Amino acid sequence: MNHQFYRLDALAKQVQAKFFGQADLELLGLASLEKANEKQLAFVNGEKYINQAKESKAGALIVTQEYKDLLEGYHSNFLVVDSPYLAFAILTHVFERKQIERGIENTAQIHPSAIVSETAYIGHYVVIGENCVVGDDSIINSHVKIDDFVEVGKNCFIDSHVTLTGACKIGHRVRIHANTVVGGEGFGFAPYQGKWHRIVQLGSVIVGDDVRIGSNCSIDRGALDDTILENGVIIDNLVQVAHNVKIGANTAIAAKCGIAGSTTIGKNCVLAGAVGIVGHINITDNVTITGMSMVTNNISKAGTYSSGTALMETNAWKKAAVRFKQLADVPLTQLVKRLDHMQSQIESLESTFKLRK
Amino acid sequence: MNHQFYRLDALAKQVQAKFFGQADLELLGLASLEKANEKQLAFVNGEKYINQAKESKAGALIVTQEYKDLLEGYHSNFLVVDSPYLAFAILTHVFERKQIERGIENTAQIHPSAIVSETAYIGHYVVIGENCVVGDDSIINSHVKIDDFVEVGKNCFIDSHVTLTGACKIGHRVRIHANTVVGGEGFGFAPYQGKWHRIVQLGSVIVGDDVRIGSNCSIDRGALDDTILENGVIIDNLVQVAHNVKIGANTAIAAKCGIAGSTTIGKNCVLAGAVGIVGHINITDNVTITGMSMVTNNISKAGTYSSGTALMETNAWKKAAVRFKQLADVPLTQLVKRLDHMQSQIESLESTFKLRK
Amino acid sequence: MNHQFYRLDALAKQVQAKFFGQADLELLGLASLEKANEKQLAFVNGEKYINQAKESKAGALIVTQEYKDLLEGYHSNFLVVDSPYLAFAILTHVFERKQIERGIENTAQIHPSAIVSETAYIGHYVVIGENCVVGDDSIINSHVKIDDFVEVGKNCFIDSHVTLTGACKIGHRVRIHANTVVGGEGFGFAPYQGKWHRIVQLGSVIVGDDVRIGSNCSIDRGALDDTILENGVIIDNLVQVAHNVKIGANTAIAAKCGIAGSTTIGKNCVLAGAVGIVGHINITDNVTITGMSMVTNNISKAGTYSSGTALMETNAWKKAAVRFKQLADVPLTQLVKRLDHMQSQIESLESTFKLRK
Repeated sequence: MNHQFYRLDALAKQVQAKFFGQADLELLGLASLEKANEKQLAFVNGEKYINQAKESKAGALIVTQEYKDLLEGYHSNFLVVDSPYLAFAILTHVFERKQIERGIENTAQIHPSAIVSETAYIGHYVVIGENCVVGDDSIINSHVKIDDFVEVGKNCFIDSHVTLTGACKIGHRVRIHANTVVGGEGFGFAPYQGKWHRIVQLGSVIVGDDVRIGSNCSIDRGALDDTILENGVIIDNLVQVAHNVKIGANTAIAAKCGIAGSTTIGKNCVLAGAVGIVGHINITDNVTITGMSMVTNNISKAGTYSSGTALMETNAWKKAAVRFKQLADVPLTQLVKRLDHMQSQIESLESTFKLRK
Repeated sequence: MNHQFYRLDALAKQVQAKFFGQADLELLGLASLEKANEKQLAFVNGEKYINQAKESKAGALIVTQEYKDLLEGYHSNFLVVDSPYLAFAILTHVFERKQIERGIENTAQIHPSAIVSETAYIGHYVVIGENCVVGDDSIINSHVKIDDFVEVGKNCFIDSHVTLTGACKIGHRVRIHANTVVGGEGFGFAPYQGKWHRIVQLGSVIVGDDVRIGSNCSIDRGALDDTILENGVIIDNLVQVAHNVKIGANTAIAAKCGIAGSTTIGKNCVLAGAVGIVGHINITDNVTITGMSMVTNNISKAGTYSSGTALMETNAWKKAAVRFKQLADVPLTQLVKRLDHMQSQIESLESTFKLRK
Repeated sequence: MNHQFYRLDALAKQVQAKFFGQADLELLGLASLEKANEKQLAFVNGEKYINQAKESKAGALIVTQEYKDLLEGYHSNFLVVDSPYLAFAILTHVFERKQIERGIENTAQIHPSAIVSETAYIGHYVVIGENCVVGDDSIINSHVKIDDFVEVGKNCFIDSHVTLTGACKIGHRVRIHANTVVGGEGFGFAPYQGKWHRIVQLGSVIVGDDVRIGSNCSIDRGALDDTILENGVIIDNLVQVAHNVKIGANTAIAAKCGIAGSTTIGKNCVLAGAVGIVGHINITDNVTITGMSMVTNNISKAGTYSSGTALMETNAWKKAAVRFKQLADVPLTQLVKRLDHMQSQIESLESTFKLRK
């Protein structure tokens, strides 16, 4: 938080809300319904939170008109909007403690051929190589390495210990969190006579605008063509994106996912945590994949997909796991057919038998 | 190892052992039973190692009284303790090569408002921001970034390239290994009209005392409230802890685990390698989860839990995997009931038939 | 790419190819069949690409004699070799933009006891500790930490933000990509009276010649003995190798794999992405494990192994997952036997019945 007060009417303006109650109420921050105090704003993100909202000590609530009606008598200060969650998201930016440094720290090493905007911030011990570009208002935090021929757009945030290499191109308003590597060499080797022969990776990585990459991610450069993250892609921590992967606009990828080489993922997809996707396949737009799923084939139809098994007590799981292996020799569908057939045999025996009585 | 000799009687004192044999025997280090030489100490960690112990060339053995009796005639130098494994753990500290530098390297960049203990060590190219604190005897190795408002307690060890940000608070005797990020921004976005709207994360990370975090981990700051690691939590490498997760005291988390947002894990739990835990659930105390398991629901009963399938030759696995999919249309328990029912029909046919003979 | 032209006959020499066509054809780089232009070389990696090759605009093609015969009339410039893929791999090195800096940047901090070859390159803000060695022609990029007693061989490439610690020994021609940690402390703790007691790790890591390690990997030092990567091992990004693991020569490990402590993997194995291997087991030579498999037992026979379940639509998967749990109580093989038995009962009833008609 930035320890600054904002008036209720001023906050209403930020999110185009109607406000109700005390216009000059001073608010210091945002909090959950449960933990908010009278100096804090909380939001109601669904009807199931109405009872919690009634009991909340928050100074003001972000609500829809409908929720406001339900909360009259319990609270008097409201911001009324269509989407409380979106309004909350916008207001987090108001209360953010902004990094305001600009200019180049005297310990940064910048190659004379690099072009760095005067409105950018370059932190301590940053190293910027030959022919690099850093755009207006971009923040490059301490210890970042920007290798030769890398370009960073405007209004970016690159946190400490990030390595940008492989001549990657980063768009505008991109955020890359600490210790991530963009443009590392793809894992390409030609096997020949029992040894692995390294294939130098000559492609790069193209990162669109408004992309977000978490910490400790590895986004590899392409072998010949480029690895591509389209505009609006958001990626969590510890994610692997292999060479020549292409990820469509506004796709969200949760932590610990891995996408193998040359796979294409469509737009507006959601990969939950630790999903693994094999190389050289295509996934269409609007696909959701649940956590820890393994994807080994193309997905050509939008929808939600899963794999894996559910958690069990270990002793029971051991039995189920043994029987999973037995499935290799148990023709399940044939079994059902046999059962049906035997039942009709029995019924025929029974009826014949009755006829003869 | 520190290349220094220790006498057997001196080592006995360190672990409150009774010693038997040559008091002034000089020992240079620890080794496994198999590889130890006459200048080294080995430990016997269970009766199944007695034969290996008999043949070991170790100069002395750490044993229980019971194991000593079994090894008489084969060895003459012993440290006798209740727990040889614990004694071994303690003695590794004796033979550790300690980092003894103190003070601040002249290349470190420390904001004037930061308070750094005179007995701390601040390595080369460390950057420490506004209002930070580093406690007594803490070691901050080269290239560490300690961002504004971060506090590090006493006797901590923070290895190279660690990023501490998000105003996180680190307790005493905490060890954080190289290239880990604590306090990075949580993965919070409000979806609205097909785009992702970033929710600035305003919470922090609170790390208790005696916590250990491995290398290349990502521990994210909370959205509004804090992410919490209680005292004595130990975490291996490449682990993801999302925003607002709370991990109870003395819980151990092996490499490559991922814990999604707002999940609470109890005390004294053990997560084996690569376990994935979905967000917004509760796991009670004393739960063990086996490797690579997927946890998607609350666990309210202590015990051991698993998911997944066991390894098979790929050709057999392909058949089993097809049949797993068929299970969606095969009502297993109903199948057993049908079988039971048909059996009784057959038996009834048989008996009626016999009666009529 | 290095933006330099090479003549067709010169490139032929590099890969010991016969060339056909215009000897002085100037080529600027490599590209895929699909994207190549007349200044670029493409390769034909199998008969299924012949039609694509016919239509390719590449200036010259790398082919086998057989493919050349099929492409006569469509193209006139060829490099003819036994293995086009290998030739392509070799030529990527020709077109690579080489890092040519040598010497020590003035901001590097090198302990006086360290021995650094005059032909090595030491980048900005590199820190090299006591008694370290860096061999001839090795490139140590910016911000690398080489901790006390670490040795790096000849012709190595160590990218930015790598941490080499734990007195590890790195062979010749080793490539370690950005933000990887080699020699971090293994995850060893003795549980005693409800707490975890740290076991200082006194072993190291031995990395053979021609090893490749990707970005954001963690390779831990051994507890007493060493962690070992034999010659020719190649490892992708975000891989965990725990203490005392031993990996045999020329084994390939894809991204996001995790290998728990004290496990031994043989030579010439292939681990696909995100494979998890439990500790203290042995895997023989020439084993392939498919992606995301879980390995919990020794593998003593060469072959290909798998685990997990295949992707399904989530609604169907939920049913299958419930039935997987039911398998714990459904004795599958016994079920088949019962079915067989009932069938024979029915048949016997039928035949007796017919006899009596």
